[in-house]
Amino acid sequence: MPTEEGQDEASRKALEYSAFYRGKIGTVPKVPVKSLDDFSVWYTPGVAAVSTAIEKNPGLSFDYTNRWNTVAVLTDGSRVLGLGDIGPEASLPVMEGKALIYKYLGGVDAVPVPIRVSSEEQFIAVAEALEPGFGGINLEDIASPRCFDILERLRGKMKIPVWHDDQQGTAGVILAALYNALELTGRDLRNARIVLFGAGAANIAAARLLIEAGAPAGEMILMDSKGTLHSEREDIDQLLMRNRWKYEMALKTNSSKVQGSLKDALKGADVLVAAATPGPHVIKRDEISSMNPDPVVFLLSNPVPEMWPDEAVNAGAAVVATGRSDFANQVNNSVLFPGLFRGALDVRARNISDTMVIAAARELANFARAKGLSKTNIIPTMLDWDVFPSVAAVVGEQAQREGLAGKSLSRSELFAEAQRIIQQSRNLASILIEKGIIPPLPDDRLAGRGD
Amino acid sequence: MPTEEGQDEASRKALEYSAFYRGKIGTVPKVPVKSLDDFSVWYTPGVAAVSTAIEKNPGLSFDYTNRWNTVAVLTDGSRVLGLGDIGPEASLPVMEGKALIYKYLGGVDAVPVPIRVSSEEQFIAVAEALEPGFGGINLEDIASPRCFDILERLRGKMKIPVWHDDQQGTAGVILAALYNALELTGRDLRNARIVLFGAGAANIAAARLLIEAGAPAGEMILMDSKGTLHSEREDIDQLLMRNRWKYEMALKTNSSKVQGSLKDALKGADVLVAAATPGPHVIKRDEISSMNPDPVVFLLSNPVPEMWPDEAVNAGAAVVATGRSDFANQVNNSVLFPGLFRGALDVRARNISDTMVIAAARELANFARAKGLSKTNIIPTMLDWDVFPSVAAVVGEQAQREGLAGKSLSRSELFAEAQRIIQQSRNLASILIEKGIIPPLPDDRLAGRGD
Repeated sequence: MPTEEGQDEASRKALEYSAFYRGKIGTVPKVPVKSLDDFSVWYTPGVAAVSTAIEKNPGLSFDYTNRWNTVAVLTDGSRVLGLGDIGPEASLPVMEGKALIYKYLGGVDAVPVPIRVSSEEQFIAVAEALEPGFGGINLEDIASPRCFDILERLRGKMKIPVWHDDQQGTAGVILAALYNALELTGRDLRNARIVLFGAGAANIAAARLLIEAGAPAGEMILMDSKGTLHSEREDIDQLLMRNRWKYEMALKTNSSKVQGSLKDALKGADVLVAAATPGPHVIKRDEISSMNPDPVVFLLSNPVPEMWPDEAVNAGAAVVATGRSDFANQVNNSVLFPGLFRGALDVRARNISDTMVIAAARELANFARAKGLSKTNIIPTMLDWDVFPSVAAVVGEQAQREGLAGKSLSRSELFAEAQRIIQQSRNLASILIEKGIIPPLPDDRLAGRGD
Repeated sequence: MPTEEGQDEASRKALEYSAFYRGKIGTVPKVPVKSLDDFSVWYTPGVAAVSTAIEKNPGLSFDYTNRWNTVAVLTDGSRVLGLGDIGPEASLPVMEGKALIYKYLGGVDAVPVPIRVSSEEQFIAVAEALEPGFGGINLEDIASPRCFDILERLRGKMKIPVWHDDQQGTAGVILAALYNALELTGRDLRNARIVLFGAGAANIAAARLLIEAGAPAGEMILMDSKGTLHSEREDIDQLLMRNRWKYEMALKTNSSKVQGSLKDALKGADVLVAAATPGPHVIKRDEISSMNPDPVVFLLSNPVPEMWPDEAVNAGAAVVATGRSDFANQVNNSVLFPGLFRGALDVRARNISDTMVIAAARELANFARAKGLSKTNIIPTMLDWDVFPSVAAVVGEQAQREGLAGKSLSRSELFAEAQRIIQQSRNLASILIEKGIIPPLPDDRLAGRGD
């Protein structure tokens, strides 16, 4: 497979380049320093006046420092990518990558904060302790179901937005892609029959958001390794104890209590969202064939989807999406979170509500439509630079509508500000490359020598 | 006073400029991003190979990520500058200033981390939780005596260097200045009679380091607001309970149990180190006159020293130092910590020992001597760029000598590496100014418009 070779190549490069650059993100001055005297303004004695002003009004920390633009990428390393509980040190390359994307696509200053904690309580205590220095918290790669509880509790306690990308980000991008897939196949979310295969953080969050966005809960079926979720499952009491969020979904969805295999669940379904386990042969052709005509099939496991997209098409799928950039329709959080957090920060949102995520998903869908909706274009890619300020603008607008914003700005002001910040961030990266502060890739150097 | 005007001016500029720049430090990519494909190396799928390698050997986090160069500037905001317990939000401008100096003078990526905690235990728990993401911890602006305990316990628990600049940094710079002041006045630390006026974090740390460096403890006298410390003070039992470090000093120093006023303590003293309370009339001429001939007088309170330097000279002081940049001989942590932490990071030190600090102090003193020792030049200034790699080199060397280093590098390699990193950091700042990513100061803009 060319794709497996591609992966080996990416692994080789990642190891080699990581050793060469020794880090993907660093710090940079935001103020001029031309002489020693400047430190009398940036540091003592001048800084005392700024601290005193913030002491009187802590909200001024958003005006006088970089707090307004700074997000902690917080993880305990308990579920990193598909690698499991590899610990906080091992999560650091991923958190750095996330911070790089935040900066490059959203102009957000994100700081990797992998922490060593031994309980959920301790995780929450550390997150709360960190609040005064950050404008927002991005939770990342935390094991399920712990991640649900942590998100819910922190959202209740903190006055800065807390976001769990593996839940909200994934759910938002699935919703965006689904809006367009349903449009293409002449369906409406409000009566779509959706099967979610896999009941981890991503699919439970997706189910919750889809219902919030209008999908009929009773028609929805979630499946885990033990079969379909429903209110009379044998282990329902254990679910209540172990995973309250899965339990809630068992009560809310699958009102006809469909049981049996994936094939049974898929009978009469319009949509399959698989986020189960890496393929390629986890889902079979005959399973897809048992769905309604022209079904929508999302195969989201990485690095290998639950089945290859062309197989799904051969089995009758009308629209297929995966998690990979080398196939059409990549369902990828990176088109959502940089713009969404940009918008939340720019209006100083206290929270990121589900309706803000739905507004962002709707905007992603609209953006793809404006470019020409087709079976191979249902969702923007990271190359669509303008999607990020567009998402920022609708998110900022929605936050104001819901009374969650600390600042009032029009949609066009929000778009212009986000665009300016993101453009500046990309300029910064280009200049550093041009000036050799960021050295060329080792491979490019070798190529250069050979010339 | 022109100096008070200067302060008002610095305060005005600090407020105005802080509102204009909205932060002094941000994040920056360290790797090239030229196309979407690059993210397959910096993020998924390539990054998984890097995480897996670190999972097997967590030490590789220093080779594959920016951890090797990243320091958390950690505070609870309980004693910020001379402003007291103003809280974590209000401390943020100071922590940003510190991070700016770390980057500009030491090439260190420092992240401001002001935390809200309600106990020493909680502070320690948060610091420990943060360890996996950082190469070191810089404790800052924590109330005394809590700061002593926090530093001691974290140094014992953590495998990355923990530094409290208000203790170790201040003590190190005092020692450096004292080496040269004693040299100039024909004295030797090993039989100097030293009075420390004020018994807060700075002076207690200074007393401990001076003793460690060879000053005779029995000849030393510390004074707090209740008089001289000695083993038979009325409140000695309370001291044991409230402040173990002060208690230890009371037992160790002042073996003749001198009591009474500052004047009494200063009789026969060679050196006065005042870090008591802002002046200018806290110390009187006749108190200086009661010291031995040609005494050394350090007046370290900010923003106004305990007495004006010219008064001290008129009273007979041979060498005078203050904490201010507008007088000769500024005793300023900023000449020490950027180079010291550079050296600690470059050899991957597990700890910063007192003897590493003493080596750094000796190097600072030697550096000033090489430029021509005089009564107005006993200590380098922040303008002495080369002092930072010089300090880094001796610190890295000393760490290796003590078995505290994870890497082995010669002094000249250490110097060259530190110089390269610091030079690159300054280039970065210049380029950002030149390219307009860092906009000109508002005042300069107005001046430009007037042209």
